[in-house]
Order: sequence, then structure tokens, then C-alpha cells
Amino acid sequence: MGQESAGIVTSNGASPPTYTTHKGMGLVNTAFSPEALLKLRYGNLGICHTRYSTTGISELQNCQPFVVDTLHGKIAVAHNGELVNAHALRKKVMRHGVGLSTGSDSELITQLLAFTPPMEELDSPDWVARIKNLMTETPTSYSLLVMFKDVIYAVRDPYGNRPLCIGRLVPISKLHTTGVGEEDTEGWVVSSESCSFQSIGAKYYREVLPGEIVQISRHGVKTLSVVPRPEGDLPAFCIFEYVYFARPDSIFEGQMVYTVRQRCGRQLAIEAPTDVDVVSTVPESATPAALGYAQQSGLPYIEVLCKNRYVGRTFIQPNTRLRQLGVAKKFGALTDNFAGKRVVLIDDSIVRGNTISPIIKLLKEAGATEVHIRVASPPIKFPCYMGINIPTKEELIANKPEFQDIAGYIGADSVKYLTVEGLVSAVQEGIASLQEKDNISSCNKSSRKVGHCTACLTGKYPVELEW
Amino acid sequence: MGQESAGIVTSNGASPPTYTTHKGMGLVNTAFSPEALLKLRYGNLGICHTRYSTTGISELQNCQPFVVDTLHGKIAVAHNGELVNAHALRKKVMRHGVGLSTGSDSELITQLLAFTPPMEELDSPDWVARIKNLMTETPTSYSLLVMFKDVIYAVRDPYGNRPLCIGRLVPISKLHTTGVGEEDTEGWVVSSESCSFQSIGAKYYREVLPGEIVQISRHGVKTLSVVPRPEGDLPAFCIFEYVYFARPDSIFEGQMVYTVRQRCGRQLAIEAPTDVDVVSTVPESATPAALGYAQQSGLPYIEVLCKNRYVGRTFIQPNTRLRQLGVAKKFGALTDNFAGKRVVLIDDSIVRGNTISPIIKLLKEAGATEVHIRVASPPIKFPCYMGINIPTKEELIANKPEFQDIAGYIGADSVKYLTVEGLVSAVQEGIASLQEKDNISSCNKSSRKVGHCTACLTGKYPVELEW
Amino acid sequence: MGQESAGIVTSNGASPPTYTTHKGMGLVNTAFSPEALLKLRYGNLGICHTRYSTTGISELQNCQPFVVDTLHGKIAVAHNGELVNAHALRKKVMRHGVGLSTGSDSELITQLLAFTPPMEELDSPDWVARIKNLMTETPTSYSLLVMFKDVIYAVRDPYGNRPLCIGRLVPISKLHTTGVGEEDTEGWVVSSESCSFQSIGAKYYREVLPGEIVQISRHGVKTLSVVPRPEGDLPAFCIFEYVYFARPDSIFEGQMVYTVRQRCGRQLAIEAPTDVDVVSTVPESATPAALGYAQQSGLPYIEVLCKNRYVGRTFIQPNTRLRQLGVAKKFGALTDNFAGKRVVLIDDSIVRGNTISPIIKLLKEAGATEVHIRVASPPIKFPCYMGINIPTKEELIANKPEFQDIAGYIGADSVKYLTVEGLVSAVQEGIASLQEKDNISSCNKSSRKVGHCTACLTGKYPVELEW
Amino acid sequence: MGQESAGIVTSNGASPPTYTTHKGMGLVNTAFSPEALLKLRYGNLGICHTRYSTTGISELQNCQPFVVDTLHGKIAVAHNGELVNAHALRKKVMRHGVGLSTGSDSELITQLLAFTPPMEELDSPDWVARIKNLMTETPTSYSLLVMFKDVIYAVRDPYGNRPLCIGRLVPISKLHTTGVGEEDTEGWVVSSESCSFQSIGAKYYREVLPGEIVQISRHGVKTLSVVPRPEGDLPAFCIFEYVYFARPDSIFEGQMVYTVRQRCGRQLAIEAPTDVDVVSTVPESATPAALGYAQQSGLPYIEVLCKNRYVGRTFIQPNTRLRQLGVAKKFGALTDNFAGKRVVLIDDSIVRGNTISPIIKLLKEAGATEVHIRVASPPIKFPCYMGINIPTKEELIANKPEFQDIAGYIGADSVKYLTVEGLVSAVQEGIASLQEKDNISSCNKSSRKVGHCTACLTGKYPVELEW
Repeated sequence: MGQESAGIVTSNGASPPTYTTHKGMGLVNTAFSPEALLKLRYGNLGICHTRYSTTGISELQNCQPFVVDTLHGKIAVAHNGELVNAHALRKKVMRHGVGLSTGSDSELITQLLAFTPPMEELDSPDWVARIKNLMTETPTSYSLLVMFKDVIYAVRDPYGNRPLCIGRLVPISKLHTTGVGEEDTEGWVVSSESCSFQSIGAKYYREVLPGEIVQISRHGVKTLSVVPRPEGDLPAFCIFEYVYFARPDSIFEGQMVYTVRQRCGRQLAIEAPTDVDVVSTVPESATPAALGYAQQSGLPYIEVLCKNRYVGRTFIQPNTRLRQLGVAKKFGALTDNFAGKRVVLIDDSIVRGNTISPIIKLLKEAGATEVHIRVASPPIKFPCYMGINIPTKEELIANKPEFQDIAGYIGADSVKYLTVEGLVSAVQEGIASLQEKDNISSCNKSSRKVGHCTACLTGKYPVELEW
Repeated sequence: MGQESAGIVTSNGASPPTYTTHKGMGLVNTAFSPEALLKLRYGNLGICHTRYSTTGISELQNCQPFVVDTLHGKIAVAHNGELVNAHALRKKVMRHGVGLSTGSDSELITQLLAFTPPMEELDSPDWVARIKNLMTETPTSYSLLVMFKDVIYAVRDPYGNRPLCIGRLVPISKLHTTGVGEEDTEGWVVSSESCSFQSIGAKYYREVLPGEIVQISRHGVKTLSVVPRPEGDLPAFCIFEYVYFARPDSIFEGQMVYTVRQRCGRQLAIEAPTDVDVVSTVPESATPAALGYAQQSGLPYIEVLCKNRYVGRTFIQPNTRLRQLGVAKKFGALTDNFAGKRVVLIDDSIVRGNTISPIIKLLKEAGATEVHIRVASPPIKFPCYMGINIPTKEELIANKPEFQDIAGYIGADSVKYLTVEGLVSAVQEGIASLQEKDNISSCNKSSRKVGHCTACLTGKYPVELEW
Repeated sequence: MGQESAGIVTSNGASPPTYTTHKGMGLVNTAFSPEALLKLRYGNLGICHTRYSTTGISELQNCQPFVVDTLHGKIAVAHNGELVNAHALRKKVMRHGVGLSTGSDSELITQLLAFTPPMEELDSPDWVARIKNLMTETPTSYSLLVMFKDVIYAVRDPYGNRPLCIGRLVPISKLHTTGVGEEDTEGWVVSSESCSFQSIGAKYYREVLPGEIVQISRHGVKTLSVVPRPEGDLPAFCIFEYVYFARPDSIFEGQMVYTVRQRCGRQLAIEAPTDVDVVSTVPESATPAALGYAQQSGLPYIEVLCKNRYVGRTFIQPNTRLRQLGVAKKFGALTDNFAGKRVVLIDDSIVRGNTISPIIKLLKEAGATEVHIRVASPPIKFPCYMGINIPTKEELIANKPEFQDIAGYIGADSVKYLTVEGLVSAVQEGIASLQEKDNISSCNKSSRKVGHCTACLTGKYPVELEW
Repeated sequence: MGQESAGIVTSNGASPPTYTTHKGMGLVNTAFSPEALLKLRYGNLGICHTRYSTTGISELQNCQPFVVDTLHGKIAVAHNGELVNAHALRKKVMRHGVGLSTGSDSELITQLLAFTPPMEELDSPDWVARIKNLMTETPTSYSLLVMFKDVIYAVRDPYGNRPLCIGRLVPISKLHTTGVGEEDTEGWVVSSESCSFQSIGAKYYREVLPGEIVQISRHGVKTLSVVPRPEGDLPAFCIFEYVYFARPDSIFEGQMVYTVRQRCGRQLAIEAPTDVDVVSTVPESATPAALGYAQQSGLPYIEVLCKNRYVGRTFIQPNTRLRQLGVAKKFGALTDNFAGKRVVLIDDSIVRGNTISPIIKLLKEAGATEVHIRVASPPIKFPCYMGINIPTKEELIANKPEFQDIAGYIGADSVKYLTVEGLVSAVQEGIASLQEKDNISSCNKSSRKVGHCTACLTGKYPVELEW
């Protein structure tokens, strides 16, 4: 999903293996020229990482995957998430006499994995033991890919905070009747978002479970271990992935994100109805919720804004100024659709209030008689320490004095939010019905516990934060 | 709209004027760095051009505006459209002893304007006479901006084939309550598409009429002349602008493009109904037609595809390979919304058939039981010689043998197109109702004749083509 | 010689011909990537131009060769020099109704050549007549290459102000014993400086004479005409080429530039002797003069400065600041060679005084007891209107009050210049001896008159300047 | 000296310090834009590194200085040279559980320095102890700069294999009478080559001695320790720096490189006289030797070649093809200077024979009757493992069968080399005379032993090589 930098490391799987690396700044198609991709093709396995800056600093040096040479050979690590106890772990590693060349968690993880207990045999590193050891050092938040020679380990933290799923590459002959079938197109892929599978001709296979260590090799996919959570703790999959971050065609916990958002819209229509003429959306991310709201309320769904092509996404730009700049130019008003009408506009979330305010102004200038805002998620009040780029507490609109009269502040006739309970039930309702229907893959079924991280909404973090 | 190159020329309006020029390749924000824009600000008038390659060759040298030095000083010309008799005009100009340094119509136009009849007084060029002379030399297709010292002439050919409209810059104080009001933000802007006004804080004022020569200067907007068409000829505004090319929030002939597309969808539902469960769209351009189809047919409207961010528009890339490459990666299937259902998918046009075929395949693989295609425009069968980048006759799907069984060819359960009559009535119905309501600006009102170029659909070109 | 931009146009020689053009900014190896060169190879003739900005503005648009389409097909023109009556010619061309898209003489020349008298037959342009007509319109200063289909015309103005010479490509088999001999490597090349021949495996053949129009085609090299000067006028080859501008291994008028510079150094030793310990040079351009001075005076020649690699030439940068910036970093002092000694330092010219002053300071700080400057050319006092980038009159050190005490101003113990008479005799002595020995090629021999443009030194321009 | 990449790290000297880093590919003025330099100015100390690839691979990741975060804060390391026992050290570091992210010696050195013995107090790292420890781990070859907070440690290995010297920044007011004097321009600089001092307005102060650890801080320059060599070992300063690598105005061991090269030329004239008409040089690096040869032999010195501007140095390009490509275009023949004469051409070294062969051919084609080659250094026969980019043993001309008839192979009339003894005496003669005159700074004086690494000539490496 990142648009700041991208990196790929491939291995030829030989012994010793040759790794080939390319990293570049910008979107994937900028970072990877055809020449760069060509040099990467000598390999039958590889890991990749795309990145949006969570710190405001984008440098090639911080670009993953991180590769280090160890006594046993090179390992490559790609990491999604943020270690909650990174600071303490850095101290520990440095106390051992290791210098860290970047501020990234990825390097920290590679050094923790490189660490060889003296008694260990040199020629047979026990990666499962090392990864399990890493997982005891840090509870969350991480989804990891670790490549070593001819094997990739896919790992998800015990709380399952960041997503990770496995797909199966389908031979080209089964996808495109005109294409040439080649055997070598079979294989396995792992990704944070299942939506990425379709574009490379792969099918969703299953999620990596919280705490699971999966080995992917020429022998297929195999669960090596499932590291448990402390007794009594529930999983803590990031609920914000459903609300905002994931692409709507992604699947988490067996359900499509789009469907969850549509349920949020229905729930919102129940919790916060309005007396208006039409329902509309802030395109495109709020559209499923808006359609859900329209279906539940019986109000007609129309479009009030069209997106200006060629303008990037608001969220993942590293500073406020860049986020604000695009807003005014982003949307065109479809005046004739709503002039003289009362509009309820569904948005997926209001983080800073920078985006929605000019939109309301735009609609009113263009003739809307009333503009009501319904937000298909609760107010964000707390920082995320687990890898989502949420602004500081002070920047969040829900923590500002203006929030007391948010409608007045953003110029709306009314503003209402979905409740935390409403959101959680909209999310978990689908999982419950799935489990009843028992149609998820056997490995995900049965005793699976359900739980979500709502820390940014409630301040209840899944683990105690160390400082 | 172009994404191949862009250029700006500003004038400081002095006597003699200083012109500042910047041209660059790529999208506007690539072509114009902040430094480039800074050097352009010394001026109170300017013209700009963005370009998509109509010939497959993108070179900076062909980038408009074209500036030439004449006996009276420099003129700058920006041109949208394509001169139907360019070949004969080039010969004429070269026979006069002029060498042409590019193959562009823009240079040809500047040389035609530079041409000084010997009797003319040196220090007072009669630009209206020169422009009128140009308009007698070539009937269509062009919308022109001609800048000379401190005046811009906005010109539309007598058939009004390409759009051109005028907007008024609103002082910033009236747009943003927190902004600082500065007097100098008042002014006039001219554009092919009215949708561009909103993003710079301007309001739609009116269209330039077919054949009209409008002078824009410090004294405001003034009609200098309206060059008539040959008696009996109707205007020939490009109907394809409504169907595909324009942004939906643009206004042509007093009506919003979105509304016209919605009417096309309604008309399509009348002409070509289907027995299915749901209506959907190929996002985003077909969405108004799909909503129109849903409203008329009473079928529920759902989304079946989500767009992959970061992938450019299909149409305006200069060759087939580039057009095809993006298709597979462009959309994600919203599986749960349509699995087990019969779908009618509305598209705005089918040019080559390259895009719709993999989409249908995708929907069927994801579980749609039937996929019917309804196209909200008639088949394109003929080349455009007036500036729209339509493929050659041979490349158009409607001229291929496969068109006889188009449904089979693209893998649909059925395919139906809007009729030419249906399209024309959907377009003109709105203009008629506007004229009845008499709420268009006085200059557009009254005796205005209505007519559209449907050459790409019918082969009936507005003027005889010279070769 | 230019380092600002470069362009190549090749022709495939067919009827009608296809021309392929590439232009780029920067040094030749920056401007021409391997890909760019590859696309240019489809042709058996071509013209090229490299350029240093004479106006301070470097834009791709002004980059030569200039190509225009005429009634008879495309012509391409590359031009070295500056038309003394460019202003009047521009007016004339524009009065004919031609718009000029650049301020360059090259475009002006192409438009003058494109100009078709109405009586002329369309299918057989008489290029010799056109070129002769051009030469009657403007006396100097130009060396031209005009390419049309399968012919190149090499033209030098009647005063021969700018150099132009012809070389013969030697088959590779005769140059490199290990290379494969291919017949197609035979051919002809034309260049401003003969030194360029060696690097492509060509041999010097002869100069193009003042006023000569040479046709180069598959049939070889043929003189079409020699346009005479007004009676009584001598040739006016730029003497500054000998003094500073040309590479020392170039040949003009039958003599090597290095030899002329060495003679200037000998003459300088006669005109301006010094009582010092050692002779040295400002590397590298003054070295031949310094060796000549050492030989004539009997003083030992040593090196006092080493050049810092990676810093470009001082002269051909478009503005003062860029010229100055490099000076301090350009040279390293070879302290041990001159500490405690009296030095006479030979320079080839002092244009602004910016370079020599810090060098003297550097030598004195490093221990030279005296530093005397001897300049192997007379003071430059007048601007050049014929294509050499000399600073404005006001910027020239010789026109500043400081010149009265130039030694004090630049910190030298004494400063003396070569006289104009001394320079002219050093230049012409070699030509005289050549003509006596009669060993120059027959076409250059016999009645050849000798004369040089010393306008920048004396203010006597070869033709009357029009304004 | 490098032209592949460059990096700078500055520290603001605060507690804790902020380090600012910029690295870039290419020559220094490419790698560092004005913007990049601007961001680096917040600091009063910094270290920098330029690099030419010794391995053929240039990547930003390998670009120095290397910065790592340690328990005590960040350290930055710049390194010139190559650790002879790098392989064993890497194993050792990795055995400790440290992953190495690059293959560079610099990272290895930082990790060795980061290594904290457990007993050490956390808040007071003893850098001298750590650096001394590093120096016991690896005998050679390295000159190091280690920056920590507000101190820079300048370190040279016990054998003094790579050069390192200290300069003093002179206040601008004392350098340029017109400049504004600012106090903050005083300070200290450290460099591999003293020639770099002049271009920034610094004066040579002294060398860092073999084994010396010098501390540079706000309190000035202070020797902390001098780590001794194993008893009986002499210093082993790279003799190739004198012969080829250093700039001629650099000072090593108290003598100017130019003077040493001139002495080599004189010695060569004694060892290998020739019966010819003129002496000349392969410009520019062989010129001092050629002048020395001319002085000793009494033969006249002339120039036979002029260098083509705009072509880079032959030696420091990473592969053979790039080295060869430039040769043909590099020189122009000054024909008239040597036609009909017998020439002895002095070269500084013959590494592969690629350069000299086409030059001889060129001179003969241009009329030289004989061309004798005298090389001012002995044949290179052995690889360097201490940081100089010498080709593999197989690529060296002196190890090829052709070397038996080297004159025939390169097309010369005779070829002779300076002897190893001749070279060593030419180098050490100057040091001896300096020590006699006792005019070197006190710290370099007295008991200083003299010794040079001639491994590439003799195969006698200063330390035993580990594999």
C-alpha cells in the first residue's frame, strides 16, 4: 500500500544462496524499472516490501527488506507493524555490543534473529527456535517474512494485530485461455492484503493465524508452531483496517472488507438517522457505508462529488501540508444532482477535519440546502503505537476543543459518529455468522477466538506499553 | 486533460511585452516544478496547454503554446482540436516560402496569423481581421487562445466542434473565510472544460459560442465577432465529449455532463432491458449511466468492482500495449456482492474490447452467474479527424468480424448498445428543456441552434474532408 | 566545442527522405545516450551541432540543427557564427509574413533558404542559387552545413570568418590492424576544427575556402561556387581562434595552432623580456607559448601549477558567477618547484582578470619572490559580433580604469602584452612560409590572399556593422 | 579522489548530538546539490568520504561514512584502505551474533568499535581503548576518521599504509583581502591528500604518524596514543601513491609528490638512456618524470599530445571496457612538433598496456620515426590487498606472455622500466635529505623510521596475509 519506497530481495535458493536486491523511492512502478525487475528474476523465491513513511522521513536506507549476513548466511526480513517495546529491545541489542545503522524495527528484528547462542551448532541454525525466541521478546505488532536460502517463514504476532494471508499462484493456462500454460507459474504468495492476489493471478488460500509460524518452501505450506498469547488475552486485530486502511476487496477473518463497511453504514442509519432528501458519499472509500445507509434508511443514493483524476490518496502523505494541499483540487461538485436538496453525507472517518470541511462548503456553495455528516466509525482519540500512521493526540480533531461543536466547526448542519459498540458488532457479526456456517477453511475454524484492537478509539491497548 | 506534456506562456502586458515560457513532459505537476511556476508569475495574463499525444509521438518540441515573433511582436497560440484541411493549409503556407519546423497545427495557425498583407500598417495589426481570415481558411476543428501583449483572444470554430468556456476568478476572501482577501485575484479564465474552474476558485460564466471571437483584457470580456457557418449547416459539437471524454461535472450547452450520462442510462434501460438481479458499473466513468439504468429499471444498484488506486486512465496512452497492460491490475472484484447473482454491467463505450473482456471473465470467475453488457453509447465505427484520439478504423471493435458475435467474443451473456437516436435525444432533451426554461445566460439563449457531431458513430462529418 | 547542448539530424537519403533528430542538453556524452545514437544510425548522412550559449540562455528549443519542412521537403541547417545583420534580416523575413519561433540565426537562415521565388519550379529547387542568394543577403559570419535529402552543402562566408574544414574517413582496416575492415567506413566529414577528425578515424583533407559552396554527396566532394568578397576586401579569419579558442592540434590555413602559439611565445620573449629565474605557464592553454618563451629566452621551463581534475574550462560558461566560482579550486601550487624563485608566468589572454589574480596570490603565498605576467596576445578591447562569446566592453579588463595599473591590480610585479603587430606576424609568418614551400593542397594554394579579423583587439571590423 | 559516490555526516556537537547525513552517487558536485549542503551546515564538525569502487559494484548502501547507533550514542566512521584480515574479522563479529548488512570494511569497523565489553561503564565509553583494541585486531590497511558527539579521532594503521594528514583552516580574512573575516572559519581538517587543503583555504599542518591516534576537538589537536608495529617491522607506506595515485602537489613524508616523480625521471634517464631527438610525456601524470628525464639527459622536452578536454581519468573506472573506451578519443597528436623525429616517451606506469599501445600507433602514423617508451616505475606484478584498485594478476601486462616482447606487443622501438631499487631510492632520498636538514615538524622528526610497501612490485607484503 505504500507510496514512499519499495524493495525486493530474491534468492536463487542455491547453497550458498545468491540474493539479489533492488530498492527504490516512490510508488512501485517508479521504484522498479523494467531493468531492475529483470535482474531480480534469477530466483524462485523472494520477499518484497512497500512502505509509507510513518515518521515523516523517507530514506532509501530505511527501505525494507533488510538483509544481513550472519554466520549461517544471509537472511532477509520484511516487516509490517511496529514493535511496542522497540526502545527496550534496541537497548538490549546495543548492550550486547551491536551497532544499529538505522532506526527501523526491521534491522532490530534481523539483529535479534542473527544473535547466535554460543552453544548452537554453526551449520544448522534452528530458525523456528530463533523466531519463537523473537516472539517471546516482543508480543506485538508485527507480520513478518523471513527469507533464508530456499525457505520463507511467514509470521504473525500472537495478537494478530497486523494482517497476513497466503495465496496460491494459479497456472496461467487456467486463468487466460489464450495464454501459454507454463508449469513454473504455480507457487505460493504471502501478503498483508488479499486484494493483491488477484492482480498477479493468485487465489486467496487462508490467513496466517495469530502467533503462527508458517514455513513456505518447495515442499509447500506448513505450520511450524503457533505461539500462544498470555492466558486470557483475546486477539487484537486492528479494527482500523476494516474502517479505513484496507482495500474494500480484501478479506480479513473470512469476510470482505466492503461488506463490513456496508454493515457499518446500516448500523449508522439505525444509530443516527436523518431527515433529508438524499444520501451520498465522500468518494470512494465511504461508498459502501453510504450504500448501506441508503439501503437501511430507504433514502435515495446519489453522487454529489466526482474525484479529480491524477490526485493521490489523502492519508498516506508524510506531513500536514501535503495532506491539505490536495483537498481543494480533489473533488468536483455534481451540482445538478443536489442543488436545492438536503444531503446526508457519509464519511468513513474524520481524522483531522481538514478534508470534510471544504467539501461541506463546496456543497453548500453549489446549492445544497442542508448538509449532515454521518461518520461510519467512532472518533479517533488515541495514538497508535502498532504501525498505523495516526496523527499525534493533539492533532486529532476529537481531542480538540472544537470537537465540542464539531458541526459548527466544519460547517455541517449536524454530525454524528458510529459508536464503538456499533462498529465492533458490525465487524464481529460477520465473523460469528461465518463460524456458524462453518464454511471457513478448517485451519481457521473451531476454537478461533475473536477480538479486535480498538486502542485508537478507546485507549485500551492490547498489551501494556513499555517506555 | 492531457498527460503527455504541458506548457505555459505568460505575458507581463508591457509594451513591448516580455513573455515567459515553460514547457515540460508528463502530467502537469511533473511538467511544472515550483521553480518553473515561480518564474512564470511575472505577468497578469497567460495561456496554457496540456496535451495527450494524438500521434503516438510525444516531443517537447511539439508542446504548445506555440510562440512566434512577428513584425508586431510575439504572439502565443494554444490550440485544441485538429484542422480538417491541415494538409492543404501547410502546402499553402510553404508555397509562400515559409518553412515549418513542426508537424503541429499550432505552428500552422501561428504562421497563418503572422502572415501580413503588404498594405497593412506596421504598428497596428488588426487581429480580429487576421483571426477572421484564419476562420475562413479552415472551418473546423479548433478552440483557440491567441495571446498578444496584453490581450487574449478566445476563439471557437464556426461549428463549435471543440468546447471552450469562460470563468470568472472569485476573490479569495469570498471563497475561504480564513484566507486573506487580495484584490488581484479577480480576473477571467478560459478553459475547454468548465470543471477546471472550481479547483482554482473560479465560477462558470458562459460558453464561447460557435464562431465567436471573444477578447479578454483588463477591460473585461467582449465579443468582437461571430463568424457564421455556411447557410443551412448546424453546429457540430462533439457528442463524444458527453459520452466519454469530459469530466462529469463539466457543463456543455447549459447542462451537466453527469446528467446527460444518467439520461443515457435511462434511455438504455428503455431500449435494452435485461432480466437480472442487479445493475452495476465499470467504475468510474459509467457510474451515472448505471445509476440511470437502475432508476429506470427498478433494479438494485450495487458495486462489483473496486478500482486499484495508482493506475492511470486507460484511454489516453499513446499505444495499444500501454493501454492493455494496465487492465488486469486495474480492478478488484467485490466478490461477496455478486456471487451467485445475474449482473447487468453498464459501460460507457466499447472502443477496442480490450478492457471489458477481462472484467467479464473476472466477474464470472468470482461467481456471477450471468453477465450482460449494456453500453451507454452506440458503437464507434469511424475515425475522428477533429482531434479525438480514436483508434484507426481497423482497430475499432465495431469494424471487426468479431463484432457479429460481440457477446461471444468478449464472453458476455448478451451485449446491447444505445442507439444513435437514443443518444442524440438524451443529449438534446436537456438543451431543449433549458431553452424552454430560458434560464441560460442571455448570450447563449434565443436563436441558438442545436446540433452535434456524430461522425465517429455515423460517418457523417460536419464538413467535407479534403485530402 | 560546446558544452551546453548538442543535436544531430540524420537522413536516410531516400526520396522522400526520412530525417531522424536527437537533441539534448549538456556535453555530447550527456546529450546522447546509447539509445539516442542507435535510433540515429538509419542514415548515410547527417549533420550535428554542439553549442555553448552565447547569450546566457540555454534552451533545448534553440538547439541546432534547425529542421524545417519546405515545399520541396525538409532541410536541416547547422550554423557556426553570428550574422552581423541578423536584426535587419529578421525584420525582412517577418515583413514577408513569417513568424520566427526562436531568436536564433539558424532559424533565420532556414527561413531565408525556404523562401521560394514564385517563378521557381516546384520540383527542382536550385539550392546553389538559394545559398548564393543567402550569401548576398549577409556577408559574415557563418560556416554552414545544409542538408537536403542525400546531399550536404558546406558553406563558409566570403570573409572566411569562422573555420570549416573537410576530412576523409579512413577504412577501419587501415587504422587498426586488428579491426575488421568494412567498406562502408569510407566517407567524408566536415568540421569547424580539424582536431575532431582524429578521434573518429578521419584524416584532414582541406579547408573550405572563404565564400566557397562545397557539395558533399555519394559522388564525393565538389566545389559548386566561390562567392567573392567586395573588391579590395581581404579575408577575415578570426585571429582569436589561434590565440585561445581552438584546440592546439587543429590546423587552420595550413598551420598547426600549437606552432602559432609557440611562435607567439617566442615573439613575446623578444618584445617583453624579463630578468627572472624560471618560465612557467598557466596550464594548459598557455603551455606552447610558455615553451616558446623559454626557448627564445634561454630560461628554464618549469611547472608551477597542477590542474585539479574534474573542473571544467573557464571560458565557456554562460555567466560571470559560474566563471569565477571554479578559479580558486582549479589549481594546486607545486610549491617546491618555485619557492624562493622569480617566476615569469605566460598566459594566453587576460579577458576579465578574474583568473590570473588569484593564481598570482597563490604563487606568492607559496613562496615565489617575484611573479611577472607576460600575455601571449594583445589586450581585448572590443566586443565581437561574429560569434565569439567575449564579455561586454565594460567587463573587459582592458577597458577598465584598473588597466592603467594592471600589474598592481592583479598583484603582479610586471605585466606585458604581445603587440597586435607581433601577433599578426606570428600568425602570418607560418602561412607565408607554407606558400613559399608550396606544400599545401592545390586548391588552397596560389592566389590565396591572407587576412585576419582583429576586431576584438583593434576595433576594425571586417564589414560595416548595421544596427 | 573517488568519482563513484560521496557522503558527509555532520554533528552539531550537542549532548546528545544530532547527526545529519547526505550521500549521493557520482562526483562530489553531482552527489551534493546546494540543498543537500545546506541541510548539512548545522554542525561544527563532520566527516566525509569519497569513493571509487574497488569491486565494480557501486551502491549507495556501501557509501561511507557508516553511522551506527550504539549504547553510548551514534558513531560515524569513514575509512580509506582495506583490512587484510577482513574475512576473519567478519566471521568473528558474526560469531558474536551480529548481522552485517553490507560487505564493507567500514561497517565491520563500526561493529568492532560498537562492541562493548560487559564490564565497561555505560556512560563513559573509552574510545581510545576501543580504537586501540581495533588496531590490535587488524594490523593494516586503514586510515580512519571516527566521529563521536563533539570529537573526531584520526587514526592511521601501525604500518602507515594509507596516507592521512592534518591541515589548519585559515581565517578568510588572512586569505582574501576583499573577503569578510569571520572567526568561525578557524578549525582543523583531516585528509588523505594534503592537496585538498588549498582549495578550501587550509594550510598543511602535519601527517598523522603510523599507528597514531589523534583526537581533534574544540580543544585542538592532541595525540592520544601511538600503537607500535611488531618489533623489527618497518613502516609500509604505499609507494604507488608516489608513482601514480596521488596528485602531484600532495605532500607525503615531508616531500612533494611532483619532486619524487621528477627524481624518478632523472633516475630513469641514468638507468635507461636513449639515443633520440626529443623527450616527451603521456600527459599529464608523466610530465614531472619526463621533465626530470629531459634535465638529466640534456635532450629537449617537447609536447607530442594534447589532452581532449571532457574525458575522465583512465584509472578509476570500475571495469575494463570503460577503461578502454576512452583511450582513442583522449589525445590529439601535435604532429608538427615531432614529425620526422625520434621520440622517447615517458609514462608513469603500464598497468594493462591498453593506453600506451594506441598512443604509439598514433605518433607513428603522425610521422614519428622512432618511439621509445621509458616507464618511471617498475612493472606491477602482484595484486594489492590494501585498498588500491589494481587489476587481477592475470590482467596485469607484466604477468602475460606478451611481456617477454613488450616493445613488440605495444609497437614501441624499445621499452624500459625503472628498477625497484631505483624507485625506492628516488623516494627515500628526499626523506633522508629532509631528516638531515631537520626542517620537518618536531613530531615527525627524530627517530622516524622509513619504509615503503612495494608489494605490487615485489610480492613482499608488509604483513602475512590471512585467508
